[in-house]
Amino acid sequence: MDGILFYCPNILESPVLPEEESYHCVKVLRTQEGEMVTVTDGKGSFYYCELVQAHPKQCIVAIRHQAEAATHRSFSLQIAFAPTKQMDRNEWFLEKGTEIGIDRFTPLLCRYSERKEIKVERLRKIVISAMKQSIQAYLPEVEAMVPFKEFVKRPFQGRKFIAHCHDLPKEELVQTYRKGENALILIGPEGDFSEEEVEQAVEQGFEPVNIGETRLRSETAALVSMHTLHVINNIQ
Amino acid sequence: MDGILFYCPNILESPVLPEEESYHCVKVLRTQEGEMVTVTDGKGSFYYCELVQAHPKQCIVAIRHQAEAATHRSFSLQIAFAPTKQMDRNEWFLEKGTEIGIDRFTPLLCRYSERKEIKVERLRKIVISAMKQSIQAYLPEVEAMVPFKEFVKRPFQGRKFIAHCHDLPKEELVQTYRKGENALILIGPEGDFSEEEVEQAVEQGFEPVNIGETRLRSETAALVSMHTLHVINNIQ
Repeated sequence: MDGILFYCPNILESPVLPEEESYHCVKVLRTQEGEMVTVTDGKGSFYYCELVQAHPKQCIVAIRHQAEAATHRSFSLQIAFAPTKQMDRNEWFLEKGTEIGIDRFTPLLCRYSERKEIKVERLRKIVISAMKQSIQAYLPEVEAMVPFKEFVKRPFQGRKFIAHCHDLPKEELVQTYRKGENALILIGPEGDFSEEEVEQAVEQGFEPVNIGETRLRSETAALVSMHTLHVINNIQ
Repeated sequence: MDGILFYCPNILESPVLPEEESYHCVKVLRTQEGEMVTVTDGKGSFYYCELVQAHPKQCIVAIRHQAEAATHRSFSLQIAFAPTKQMDRNEWFLEKGTEIGIDRFTPLLCRYSERKEIKVERLRKIVISAMKQSIQAYLPEVEAMVPFKEFVKRPFQGRKFIAHCHDLPKEELVQTYRKGENALILIGPEGDFSEEEVEQAVEQGFEPVNIGETRLRSETAALVSMHTLHVINNIQ
């Protein structure tokens, strides 16, 4: 499908576009009552709807046809990263990560974190916007910030990787990851994970990896590592 | 090597840091005479130098040791792209592209270009900065904007790809590109290349490719396509 996509998470229970979506529909795009609009619930479906009420705060739609999105990615991809001090860099990563395809972003609080808190709602808006812009039907989850020590203890079914720059044994991500595997990648702050954090992660089953040949900024490392997994999944 | 890197393109002829580099060295980093600084010429070498004159406009260095950078990439990678209207997106791409590794950026003027001119000096500063930040010794080239029709007629030794969204026969970039091949990739504006532009490119030996499964913004497409080639080159 092509064109503009709206987001309405609970369209089946309440076919009313959220306020921002309604404003955009009526005031920016000037959609008329009776015209068709395409909406996603962010949970895998596209809904082809008629706009029945063109209200700038409360557009009401009537679903004419529902379609499941093309088959979702078979592997789960999650990134936990220490946000950088400059918010635009974090926003850039969430936008591009969503465009390329990801299931969950978790901001981490690490020993050498530049940024010790982050406005999750702002990140969620970026992600919704990127999902719509890239015409996808699955909304990546954005969690609140989690302390590193707590995060590494969470269970995860799949490969768990920690990218770091210390002179310790590491595999190349591109060599070790196999097509189809679920993956969780940890990306540290500009000052890297501490050696203690790397040990804690290794104790919890994380595999230290190298993700590229050049020295990358945090947000670049995050995008490069997840895109590497996409490429491996697309090679036949 | 680690730490701060300075850029001085003609250090062998003239071991004087450019004005911006000098300012940064003296006023920001407060480097003292007698201290060592590392400098690249952007042509493949690192120079370990002593700062002999700490002048905020004209630092003079004395080369104590010269080292070639680690072996340069064996394949040439060039991207010609239609810059987006918002300059920060173009700047993001040049920064991240330089971090990951690229030889040449060429801004293109296309039928549906949003941006019909671009300040090349500004882009060159971004690229110098990203080269230094990622501790690399090869400076990517940034050309002035070239009209599409003229660009596709230029000779190039290697694979030539054009990424577009039309419903025409295309290969998957990740399937068709082979490790070690030189590559030149064309990325169109948000409104895509025109069908006529695609035909012109195909006549000149460009291969139409698909670069991903999701709909990507121009600058994301540019980064994803070049990173795909890096991943293929790093798989054993």
